[in-house]
Amino acid sequence: MVRSPTREAASGPRAVARCDDLGAVPYSDSAEHLFRPYLGSAHAATLDRIAAWMTEAGMTARVDAAGNIVARYEGRHPDAPALMIGSHVDSVRDAGRYDGMLGVMLGIETVAWFAERGHRFPFAIEVIGFGDEEGSRFPVSMLTSRAVAGVLGDQDLALADAEGVGLAEALEGFGLDVARLADAGRAREDILAYVEAHIEQGPVLEAEGHALGVVSAIAAQYRFRAEVTGVAGHAGTMAMRLRHDALAAAAEMVLAVERIGGAGPEDLVATVGRMEVGPGVPNVVPGTVRFSIDIRAGVGAVRDRAADAIRAALAEIAARRGVGLDLALQQDLPATPCDAGLSGLLADAVRDVTGAAPRMLVSGAGHDAMVMAHLAPVAMLFLRCRGGVSHHPAEAVDVDDVQKALEAMTDFVTRFEQAWSGAGTALTEEER
Amino acid sequence: MVRSPTREAASGPRAVARCDDLGAVPYSDSAEHLFRPYLGSAHAATLDRIAAWMTEAGMTARVDAAGNIVARYEGRHPDAPALMIGSHVDSVRDAGRYDGMLGVMLGIETVAWFAERGHRFPFAIEVIGFGDEEGSRFPVSMLTSRAVAGVLGDQDLALADAEGVGLAEALEGFGLDVARLADAGRAREDILAYVEAHIEQGPVLEAEGHALGVVSAIAAQYRFRAEVTGVAGHAGTMAMRLRHDALAAAAEMVLAVERIGGAGPEDLVATVGRMEVGPGVPNVVPGTVRFSIDIRAGVGAVRDRAADAIRAALAEIAARRGVGLDLALQQDLPATPCDAGLSGLLADAVRDVTGAAPRMLVSGAGHDAMVMAHLAPVAMLFLRCRGGVSHHPAEAVDVDDVQKALEAMTDFVTRFEQAWSGAGTALTEEER
Repeated sequence: MVRSPTREAASGPRAVARCDDLGAVPYSDSAEHLFRPYLGSAHAATLDRIAAWMTEAGMTARVDAAGNIVARYEGRHPDAPALMIGSHVDSVRDAGRYDGMLGVMLGIETVAWFAERGHRFPFAIEVIGFGDEEGSRFPVSMLTSRAVAGVLGDQDLALADAEGVGLAEALEGFGLDVARLADAGRAREDILAYVEAHIEQGPVLEAEGHALGVVSAIAAQYRFRAEVTGVAGHAGTMAMRLRHDALAAAAEMVLAVERIGGAGPEDLVATVGRMEVGPGVPNVVPGTVRFSIDIRAGVGAVRDRAADAIRAALAEIAARRGVGLDLALQQDLPATPCDAGLSGLLADAVRDVTGAAPRMLVSGAGHDAMVMAHLAPVAMLFLRCRGGVSHHPAEAVDVDDVQKALEAMTDFVTRFEQAWSGAGTALTEEER
Repeated sequence: MVRSPTREAASGPRAVARCDDLGAVPYSDSAEHLFRPYLGSAHAATLDRIAAWMTEAGMTARVDAAGNIVARYEGRHPDAPALMIGSHVDSVRDAGRYDGMLGVMLGIETVAWFAERGHRFPFAIEVIGFGDEEGSRFPVSMLTSRAVAGVLGDQDLALADAEGVGLAEALEGFGLDVARLADAGRAREDILAYVEAHIEQGPVLEAEGHALGVVSAIAAQYRFRAEVTGVAGHAGTMAMRLRHDALAAAAEMVLAVERIGGAGPEDLVATVGRMEVGPGVPNVVPGTVRFSIDIRAGVGAVRDRAADAIRAALAEIAARRGVGLDLALQQDLPATPCDAGLSGLLADAVRDVTGAAPRMLVSGAGHDAMVMAHLAPVAMLFLRCRGGVSHHPAEAVDVDDVQKALEAMTDFVTRFEQAWSGAGTALTEEER
C-alpha cells in the first residue's frame, strides 16, 4: 500500500484532526461542551465544513431531504449503484469528538485515498453523514437513517423536542420540508452495501490489545418512558408517613433497573439516563417524575426477560407506595446481525493490516448500520478507544489506530471491487 | 362585632375571592398553572392590583426597595410606630392560590374593617406583601423579609436564578437598584410587632376540628445542595459492573434521606425536592446529579441529629459506589419561638371568635415571621386548609374559616390597642 508523503494526502491523522476541528463552536451549540443536536445551528455549520472536505476529496456533496450530508464519488459509469460508507454527525450533550464523526471522516479519507490515485470503480462510492443518530433532540433516535432506509413511521413526523419545537418546524428552520422527508429514501437497487467505521465505545479491544474489531451483530434495544405520579405537598408540613413522594418512588425504581441489569450476562445493560422531577423545587415534595429506561442485550430474549423483570419490579414499587406508574415503550430495535459476506471481507482486510486474527464482537451501542440493514447488507469496523469511554469529553483514539482503520477501509473497498467484479466469491447473491 | 351588610365591606369571603382573582394570568407567569416568582411580570401585575385594593381600604401604598408592597394606615399621630400585618405574594411553581396571599388579603381586610368604622389607633398599621418568601426563583428564600429586617448578607446580592439572571439585573427590570436594596430595612423603633395569618399547610387543624390555630414556634430548617459526580458513559457499552452511575448513587441517597426523615418524631421531615441529572439523555449513563435536601424539626437538636445521620449515610453510599460527593449547607434557619405576649393576645382572640380553647402548634413550614423576629416580636395565626395540602393547585380553604380569621385578627388588633394603651398587661416591656 502506497502512502502519500504530503500533509494534504488522505490519512488517519487528518481524519482525527478534522474531528478535533469540529469539537467546538460554531460546530457545537454550547460553548461549554460539545453538543451538536439534529437541525441545530451547529449542525448546519458542520455540514458546510464537511461538504467542503468532501468536494476537496473529489466528491459531489448535497444535503438530502432529512438533513443528511451525502457525497458521491462517481464510478466508471454514471448512475452506477453505490457502496455507501458513513456514520453520523450529531452528538449527545457534553460529547466526545469521535463518536460518529470519525466514521464520516474515514469515509472521506477512503474516497480521497482512491481519488488521489485516480482510481474509479465499476460502482459509485457515497459517503453519508447522518443528521440524527443519538436522538439527543427528539425522543427517538436514528431518525435520518430511517428516512434513508425508507422505514420512517407516520408518528415520527409528529415528534417534538423538549422545548416543544416540532420536527416539521425544526426541518423548516433548516430549509427542509417535513412533507418531503421521505424523499431521502433510497432504492434498494441503488445501494450495494453500507459500511460504517465507529469507535468501539467499550473496553474489549483495548483490554485484549486489538486496534480494530469487526462487528458480528448489534444488540437488541428497548427504550421506555416512565412517569411516576405521587402527591406534591409542602416539604415542611407533609408528615413523612403521609407522603406519596414521586421522587422517592422513582429512586427505588432506578435501583431496581440497576439491580436487574446487573444480574444478567455481561452484555445485558439497563440504564436510567434522563430524569425530570416536578415541580422540582427544594421545598416541595415531588409530585411527578419522568424518566427513561434503556435496556440492551446481544440476544433479544435476554433483553426481553430483563424488561419483564423491570416492569414487574416497578409495578410492585408503585403499588406499595401508592403512586401512579405509566410505562410506555418508545423504541424496540431487534438485534441486527451484520452481513456475513461483507464482514468476511472486512475481517480479511483487518487481518492484512494488523497481522492478527480479527476480533469479532457484538455492539452494545446502536448504530445507523442497524437501520441501514433494512436497505442493504451492512458491515461495521470498530476502532479501539481509550478506556472504552464515549459520550464524554474524555473520548480518545490513537492516531495509529485510525491510520490502520483507513488502511483496512481501503483494503476492504479493493476486496469489495474484486468480489463485485466476479474475481472473488465473498459476496452473496443478494449483494451482486 | 358589627358586620357590614354591603358586598363592598371588609369580609373573609372577599379575601378569598381576591386570592382567586390573582390565581391566573396576568398574575401568573405561566398559563398552565399558578407561578408567581419574585420580580417576574406576574409579580408586577399583582402589586398593581393589590395597591389598588390597599388604597381602596384607606391606606397609602408603595413598593419598597426590595419589591415588597407596603401600605400604611396612619395612626392618630403621624410618624407613629406601626403594627405590621402581612405575608408574601410570591408562589412556588404549580402553586395553590392561598399560601401567602391569603395573609396579605386578610391584612387589607383587617384595616378595611377598622377604616369602615373610622377607627384610628395610637399606632399606625402597615400591611406588607413580601416579594420573595418561597425562594422559587433565586436559590435562597425570604430574601425580601430579610431586607426589611436588615439581615441580608453580602452574598445575597450576588445570587443568580436558574437562567443565569442575577438579582441585580432582576431588580433593575423591576425598576429597582440592588445597591439600594438595604433601603427596604426598617428601624426597630418603628415596628411594634409583626403578625402573619397563613394557611396551616398541614393536616393538624383539620384532623382535630379547629378552624384556627396559634403558632408557638417555627421549625428549625437546613437546606443542603448535594452534588454527586460519577463517570458518564455510553448506556449500551459500559458494562454494569464497571459503572459509577451518578443517578443510581443519588437514588440510594434519596432513599436514605427518606428513611432518616421518617425515623424521627412526627415533626421531623426530610425532603429531596429538586434533582437535575447530567447529561440527562436516555443513552448516557449519568455522570453528575445535583439535588437539594431540606430538613426540618420543631427542635433544633432533632434537626441536627437527622442532618448528621444523612451526612454519614450519603458519605457511605458515595464511598461504596466510588462516586464523588459534595454537600454544601445553603440555609440554616434556627427554630423561631413566637412572642409569648403577642401569641397570648392572639390566642385570646381565637378563643373569643371560635368559642374553643385555641390549638397551639409548631409550624413545619418557614415563614417571613421567622425573619421578622429579628426586627420585632412576632405572632402567627394559622387557618385550617383542606387535606393539609399546599404548594399545589388543590390548596383550599373554607370561607367560613377565613371569616373567623378576619374576626380573630380585628379582635387581636383591638386587644393590642388596649395593651399598647396601658389598659392591658399582655405586652412585654420590649413591645411597648
